Amino acid sequence: MKRIGMLTSGGDCQALNAAMRGVVKTLLFSGEDIEIYGFQDGYKGLIYCNFQMLTGHDFSGILTKGGTILGTSRTPYKLIDEPTPEGLNKIEEMKRNYAKLKLDCLVILGGNGTHKTANRLSEEGLNVITLPKTIDNDLWGTDMTFGFQSAVDIATNAIDCIHTTASSHGRVFIVEVMGHKTGWLTLNAGMASGADIILLPEIPYDIKKVIEKIEERDKNGSRFTIIAVAEGAISKQDAKLSKKEYKKKLEKRKVSVSYEIADEIFARTGREVRVTVPGHMQRGGSPCPYDRVFASRLGAEAGKLILEGKFGFMVGYKNREIVQVKLEDVAGKLKNVDPDASIIKEAKLLGISFGD
Amino acid sequence: MKRIGMLTSGGDCQALNAAMRGVVKTLLFSGEDIEIYGFQDGYKGLIYCNFQMLTGHDFSGILTKGGTILGTSRTPYKLIDEPTPEGLNKIEEMKRNYAKLKLDCLVILGGNGTHKTANRLSEEGLNVITLPKTIDNDLWGTDMTFGFQSAVDIATNAIDCIHTTASSHGRVFIVEVMGHKTGWLTLNAGMASGADIILLPEIPYDIKKVIEKIEERDKNGSRFTIIAVAEGAISKQDAKLSKKEYKKKLEKRKVSVSYEIADEIFARTGREVRVTVPGHMQRGGSPCPYDRVFASRLGAEAGKLILEGKFGFMVGYKNREIVQVKLEDVAGKLKNVDPDASIIKEAKLLGISFGD
Amino acid sequence: MKRIGMLTSGGDCQALNAAMRGVVKTLLFSGEDIEIYGFQDGYKGLIYCNFQMLTGHDFSGILTKGGTILGTSRTPYKLIDEPTPEGLNKIEEMKRNYAKLKLDCLVILGGNGTHKTANRLSEEGLNVITLPKTIDNDLWGTDMTFGFQSAVDIATNAIDCIHTTASSHGRVFIVEVMGHKTGWLTLNAGMASGADIILLPEIPYDIKKVIEKIEERDKNGSRFTIIAVAEGAISKQDAKLSKKEYKKKLEKRKVSVSYEIADEIFARTGREVRVTVPGHMQRGGSPCPYDRVFASRLGAEAGKLILEGKFGFMVGYKNREIVQVKLEDVAGKLKNVDPDASIIKEAKLLGISFGD
Amino acid sequence: MKRIGMLTSGGDCQALNAAMRGVVKTLLFSGEDIEIYGFQDGYKGLIYCNFQMLTGHDFSGILTKGGTILGTSRTPYKLIDEPTPEGLNKIEEMKRNYAKLKLDCLVILGGNGTHKTANRLSEEGLNVITLPKTIDNDLWGTDMTFGFQSAVDIATNAIDCIHTTASSHGRVFIVEVMGHKTGWLTLNAGMASGADIILLPEIPYDIKKVIEKIEERDKNGSRFTIIAVAEGAISKQDAKLSKKEYKKKLEKRKVSVSYEIADEIFARTGREVRVTVPGHMQRGGSPCPYDRVFASRLGAEAGKLILEGKFGFMVGYKNREIVQVKLEDVAGKLKNVDPDASIIKEAKLLGISFGD
Repeated sequence: MKRIGMLTSGGDCQALNAAMRGVVKTLLFSGEDIEIYGFQDGYKGLIYCNFQMLTGHDFSGILTKGGTILGTSRTPYKLIDEPTPEGLNKIEEMKRNYAKLKLDCLVILGGNGTHKTANRLSEEGLNVITLPKTIDNDLWGTDMTFGFQSAVDIATNAIDCIHTTASSHGRVFIVEVMGHKTGWLTLNAGMASGADIILLPEIPYDIKKVIEKIEERDKNGSRFTIIAVAEGAISKQDAKLSKKEYKKKLEKRKVSVSYEIADEIFARTGREVRVTVPGHMQRGGSPCPYDRVFASRLGAEAGKLILEGKFGFMVGYKNREIVQVKLEDVAGKLKNVDPDASIIKEAKLLGISFGD
Repeated sequence: MKRIGMLTSGGDCQALNAAMRGVVKTLLFSGEDIEIYGFQDGYKGLIYCNFQMLTGHDFSGILTKGGTILGTSRTPYKLIDEPTPEGLNKIEEMKRNYAKLKLDCLVILGGNGTHKTANRLSEEGLNVITLPKTIDNDLWGTDMTFGFQSAVDIATNAIDCIHTTASSHGRVFIVEVMGHKTGWLTLNAGMASGADIILLPEIPYDIKKVIEKIEERDKNGSRFTIIAVAEGAISKQDAKLSKKEYKKKLEKRKVSVSYEIADEIFARTGREVRVTVPGHMQRGGSPCPYDRVFASRLGAEAGKLILEGKFGFMVGYKNREIVQVKLEDVAGKLKNVDPDASIIKEAKLLGISFGD
Repeated sequence: MKRIGMLTSGGDCQALNAAMRGVVKTLLFSGEDIEIYGFQDGYKGLIYCNFQMLTGHDFSGILTKGGTILGTSRTPYKLIDEPTPEGLNKIEEMKRNYAKLKLDCLVILGGNGTHKTANRLSEEGLNVITLPKTIDNDLWGTDMTFGFQSAVDIATNAIDCIHTTASSHGRVFIVEVMGHKTGWLTLNAGMASGADIILLPEIPYDIKKVIEKIEERDKNGSRFTIIAVAEGAISKQDAKLSKKEYKKKLEKRKVSVSYEIADEIFARTGREVRVTVPGHMQRGGSPCPYDRVFASRLGAEAGKLILEGKFGFMVGYKNREIVQVKLEDVAGKLKNVDPDASIIKEAKLLGISFGD
Repeated sequence: MKRIGMLTSGGDCQALNAAMRGVVKTLLFSGEDIEIYGFQDGYKGLIYCNFQMLTGHDFSGILTKGGTILGTSRTPYKLIDEPTPEGLNKIEEMKRNYAKLKLDCLVILGGNGTHKTANRLSEEGLNVITLPKTIDNDLWGTDMTFGFQSAVDIATNAIDCIHTTASSHGRVFIVEVMGHKTGWLTLNAGMASGADIILLPEIPYDIKKVIEKIEERDKNGSRFTIIAVAEGAISKQDAKLSKKEYKKKLEKRKVSVSYEIADEIFARTGREVRVTVPGHMQRGGSPCPYDRVFASRLGAEAGKLILEGKFGFMVGYKNREIVQVKLEDVAGKLKNVDPDASIIKEAKLLGISFGD
């Protein structure tokens, strides 16, 4: 008999349910006798011992369902050593509940922040297996995270819709795509939808170059320009600021970077610019087939690790094979878009401007 | 031989191309010899005699294509009697170009504003046929406008996506749906996606009732609440203001009504509220099958009227039949959601709150 | 306290769950104390008293879910007076179980066959309310049935996909759309997807006219032709046969009519013809927004009738309003496509051939 | 000035237009002066010198468009040395036209068969660059082909639709997925849609094992079973036949393997089995975002090779990077599903049966 704790943490994304279903189906199909403790709303559930006993039945039919049947919440790692409002030591409570429930292991699904805490729990002696979830695809140690391709599909569809409207009215349109620190999502959705300009956190932009591109298109007879802007896009000037200064500037700005860029384009060219923010839509809806297969495979391999008693790993993906990555190697690192990556060069060959 | 002028005016929407294809296919298939003058960017094209000669080939393969191959722009009726920046009299220029090109008629696709000008041109002696285009479905004289159902599909899909994220995080989510004056789009997208609260321009809301509903859901164990808010939703207090006072207030507000509601909910309940604004996406993308059939039928009947030499009509839809509506009967009227309509009563039976 | 029996019968379709949710939400929201007996797999469940007790919770979150949570099966009315394999009298068993469970009423969701039995049960003294479910839209007494628009969307999407392949290869493509007796689905999907020829049960075709249209397209430089064929399409020759002779012929044919037409086109023209049969896909998947709103409205009005104690009705739709139609008026009638309907005339104006 | 010949050959698929757009955009954006000769309908166009002069304008707006603007046809390599009906030597004609038009290179988009001929033309001295197009993903030398993921999406969506109908009726459903020689498409669509049994050409099945799985599901209370069957699925018995014997058997069979399997299941268990064949739909429609990005990247790198004057390569994809693969290494090889691949093992961990 195995007692499995399970939780989903951080912003939700597509295929969380598919991944959990993969773990549970694998354990059940192996004939192992299992008890599943589903902690509610991420680490919070583990801290306050708030859980539900789940059976195979609860994981049936959820392959195509968005969201997470466990609920999720954010528990920033930088606050992990500060006590809860009730004065509880978070790490100690999680260890205590793990022990109290006699868990054999914890399956944790999450992104960057989640992995720091997961690694900490592993260092503290808990048996931890993690699965790489994020629409940002910015987890170190894996070529791909689930949720990413589904979010690309939604963001692309948003820009596709804007395309017809932009060409009818001859306008400049900015579509703001999720991604504060990394630009994978914006890059892929931008390329997929034929955006003319793509602005990423990793490649600071010069507004003059952005406007040059718009005017170049004008000269070539294109009535409109589509700009895909990551939430974390940053100008060359701002990129020179210290982290602290930039943070201060952001707090003052109130509106997102897209509106700032829109204002600058209007001020310098008199052109009508419209901003669209698909926002949380990008995390929702049914996972795309790619993510369903991918998350199921990861879940299956996580189930196998549990059966083999191997812990302390994130189940990742490298060169088209599922791999095990040590949690200590994942925690605290970010997988950024390399401005010299071949995909960036290819985008530039196609005439896409990054404003650099 | 018939010379047909054609233009699309106002905000673009889905199935404009499908409708124009319907007109042209009908004329061509009848064996009539025709010349099509496609005016660029709405009435502007007619004022400045900016047009392209089009053939049947240009209208082939556009049934499923969003946007308008003619381009569009807004020419507010209230400015129709003011001269252009170049000092031209708009109405006179349009009449002059119509005469100069020896047009037999004008086919005009547009919404409310467009119809005022179309009626004026008809009164001035031009042969005008119009087609009812708007995602708002607020044109008087027709049960349905094309673009509406496609926009419902997109707005519904947006709320569907938000649904999974809302239930995962246990949050209140506001989705802002297009519609400044009428709530048809919000009402239908809200009902289709299982929104818990729907706020329409036609039914002023009381923020206390909105919060009551959120708290009622809480008590029943629902972790989240989805609110579909029309751009033109208005509080009971604001509804008491004079038009002028309200306009003034709107100018001060800067953000849309959704953010105001979100702030109020947060201020009164401490609940995290997220706002999503699908915006111009709602006008874009391929028309849905319903709109394709509907726009094609309208286009066919418009083509038939041209062949019969009957002008001064909007081709509309009443009780599942295509009908002719006199332009003078359409112009200047708005088809609002009646707060006592059976669909509102049915929504209330289902437990949906309108905040009233 | 009210005891409500509920069952879904006949081929499944989209929005069955949405409709049932509408009934239950309305009853619960009214404050009425209810018990819901969900009979498994249609009338079979009522005959064998095979049911589940359901609560509001079971109907939560199913608005967007295809299929039916109750299961369904076909119980042909012509066999209703023949005993079951176990020798049971079907009508008597249903009456007995209705009485045994002390039901206050039965909510029955179904199409044509289902309504004959529903009317019979009503005549036998049971309190029956029905909801018009079918992808065929062929129920008498209602302008629309739920499932129809969703099926149109799927069939249209199928033909859209075929369109790109047909134009790439320059082929004739036949897409077989569901509908043995009525052509609403084929007509609408065909018009929505720009099919060149549409063959319906209601308009017998002449294969020579079909080939004429293909050759006319050839002459005009179109590389391909798309034919939307209803399952029940029939040639002019076959339409002259007696019912019995035709049935005999069908039994011999083995393949569906589409393959017969494909063979004839190949035999007479040497053209490569490909047949696609989306089949049961047309009944599946999430209901479209139109069907969700529509089914919810019908469900709400059914709930209201139950609360008012009015029985013996189908809840239908006439001129954009929900109406009550007496069961005896619905049973046994079919709503066919009228070959002289305006939609047919409009399709012909657009150059679509019906092979007549 | 560069003269580029371009052709698409074999069955069409999604993202052919996106890939060609990538090549052309790259050449144009580089400032190179180019002439594009678009050969009609694959190699046939080159043999008969049937072409159109194309400009950048022709490749604008086709990123999202399915099919191929050049048309395509099959020219089996095994017939390449046999003369055309008119007595022309195919290879010689292609060489002659290449020389006559003074082409600098040929860009060929195609799958397995296409690559044999492309390699032959390269060996004969023409400058050839190829792009890997096929929904089957069975090209040697590349991890991925464009069209594949789009086809997975469509096949998955088909099975998703069937899922709701299967669960409502409690039936066994077979969905036949494209793939005569390789099972990548069936495998991925099957896993993505939660199929219970997946039958591939690479893993011969035992009908008894298939039935065992169905009965196992029955015992566990599942009312239905979904089987994803590749067109080329083969029983263990048939796998023992010689190629010649098997071919003979296939010719006799007339119906596809799915119907054979359906009959066997019915004969042995009495269960109602329904077969759905989405067929050519799997090649059609708009390419998915993944394919659009992927095909654009391949196109960009092909454009770069042309600018650098490097020929004799297929532009492929290995370990997430675009690579150049010698044509002689690609031609005549097939990339099959390895029955011991980790993805197969993972599918088995999840409880999926391959009937082996």
